[in-house]
Amino acid sequence: MSPQSVCAVDTPEPMIGELASGERRPLARLLTRIENGDPSVRPALPELFAAGRGAHVVGITGPPGSGKSTLVNALITEWRKRGRRVGILAVDPSSPYTRGAILGDRIRMMEHAADRDVFMRSMASRGELGGVAATTWIAAAALDAAGYDPVLIETVGAGQSEVEIARLAETTVVVEVPEMGDEVQAIKAGLLEVADIIAVNKGDRPGADRAARQLRAMLSTAGGRVERKPPPVMVTTATTADGVVALADAIDAHRSQARTPVEAGERAANQVRRALADLAATRAMADATWDRTIRAVADRALDPMTAAERLLDGVG
Amino acid sequence: MSPQSVCAVDTPEPMIGELASGERRPLARLLTRIENGDPSVRPALPELFAAGRGAHVVGITGPPGSGKSTLVNALITEWRKRGRRVGILAVDPSSPYTRGAILGDRIRMMEHAADRDVFMRSMASRGELGGVAATTWIAAAALDAAGYDPVLIETVGAGQSEVEIARLAETTVVVEVPEMGDEVQAIKAGLLEVADIIAVNKGDRPGADRAARQLRAMLSTAGGRVERKPPPVMVTTATTADGVVALADAIDAHRSQARTPVEAGERAANQVRRALADLAATRAMADATWDRTIRAVADRALDPMTAAERLLDGVG
Repeated sequence: MSPQSVCAVDTPEPMIGELASGERRPLARLLTRIENGDPSVRPALPELFAAGRGAHVVGITGPPGSGKSTLVNALITEWRKRGRRVGILAVDPSSPYTRGAILGDRIRMMEHAADRDVFMRSMASRGELGGVAATTWIAAAALDAAGYDPVLIETVGAGQSEVEIARLAETTVVVEVPEMGDEVQAIKAGLLEVADIIAVNKGDRPGADRAARQLRAMLSTAGGRVERKPPPVMVTTATTADGVVALADAIDAHRSQARTPVEAGERAANQVRRALADLAATRAMADATWDRTIRAVADRALDPMTAAERLLDGVG
Repeated sequence: MSPQSVCAVDTPEPMIGELASGERRPLARLLTRIENGDPSVRPALPELFAAGRGAHVVGITGPPGSGKSTLVNALITEWRKRGRRVGILAVDPSSPYTRGAILGDRIRMMEHAADRDVFMRSMASRGELGGVAATTWIAAAALDAAGYDPVLIETVGAGQSEVEIARLAETTVVVEVPEMGDEVQAIKAGLLEVADIIAVNKGDRPGADRAARQLRAMLSTAGGRVERKPPPVMVTTATTADGVVALADAIDAHRSQARTPVEAGERAANQVRRALADLAATRAMADATWDRTIRAVADRALDPMTAAERLLDGVG
């Protein structure tokens, strides 16, 4: 990309340049612009990614009630002991039914609020398919450029956008709890698929070790993924920090594996497909024929695939 | 679309024309071609959708263990009593961890195998993001053109593709079970969001009525959806068919609501966005620069958004 095309829109360079200073203010301002979908961010993206320092992007997901936020707090404490500056993006899901639980989680995160080397930001959902995912990885790039490493992306639940966001991270930790009925186990299968590391939390409860053994057995017999080793299953107790050192070690150890050409290529392909979907939808919805086309599909006068083809040919 | 453009590829008209005969063989052959992604299907889509008779497309989803397949069987029996010809698409999720449970479900579906007015087809997942969703609604259009009404789309679990597929149906039934710990309840929130009707199944178990009351309370107080009435919560016992008549009535009653301009427009927009995402990804991956672009993103030499923009400009 030439410098001219960057300068053409509202000269955004200063905002990227300021990130390297390590000050919180320029980063906070940039994150707000990213979250708001400010058009001046778009032309600055090549520069933003180029300013990246190679932070390890770690996704942490799991159902509410798994003690995930307490575990994240314990991990932050451990990483701070190791001299790491930690960035956290806490992604709120779009569901109106779960919002309460998540706000509760956020309050607990205040523990590290006074630490200048911990930067926490809640990302609100726009309720658009994939919109949060795109916004989240641009925000992660901003934290990377500002010198935070690791950058944690924390999501809640097993919904569509949570799984997508987890797929975009280099290392994905799925937090589970010991109690697992058959039904819950099956629901969680979608989460296990994206797990690079599984933490069975609340390890002080009876049955935690047994649950970990069952998970290991389940993962080692599951077909369809012969090319990949089953993810390690760790037992943690976030409230006492038991097992947290080992978990932090496992996350660090996965970093090199996440950066093999195959893993990096798969992740890049997922990111580009996601960005393509967002971009195609955004352009199509701004197209003059959008409303008319949607009405024709709603009236069954036009099939959705032909409609998509016409829109894509018009806006590409 | 002109007749020439349809004739240009392997004259697919006979396959659509034959559907109206009501014979199973041409429908089965067409579904195989749809599932295989046969390129001759693409130009026939406008004709296929034009041949639709306006079947009610009903999505049924819920976790394994909820008795969903038994409930589907009971619904088929009820609709057959009402003289309806029922088409069923059973969508297998891509997860290797749940496959066993679903194969078990399929065997139970054999109950209606001898009935010529019930057409059941399993759709295998291709493991591609959204690929199943697109294939599924084209297959639903084929069942519609062949005179089946309702067309049921049955999916399992709370994964990404299941929720997406459910969004494409006109009426979505979510099947739940009475036992709901806080954790399971939160996991299920993603499913409740797409529900037009909720069936609390295994209604003969203690606590079924209480679970239904709790769900109603939860749904009536949930914010963010003020423009929509909360979905009705029904109690069913699939094994004895208790509550199944009322459920079939509720599904039929929702049909007219699903066809208001607002609902139909939202669904059409979702379908077109989904198709756009698939189409943009398919074209981009066939582009000569795809591999090089993905490598540049993997090496962090290019950001995913700029990569998507270049690919889209090249293939649109």
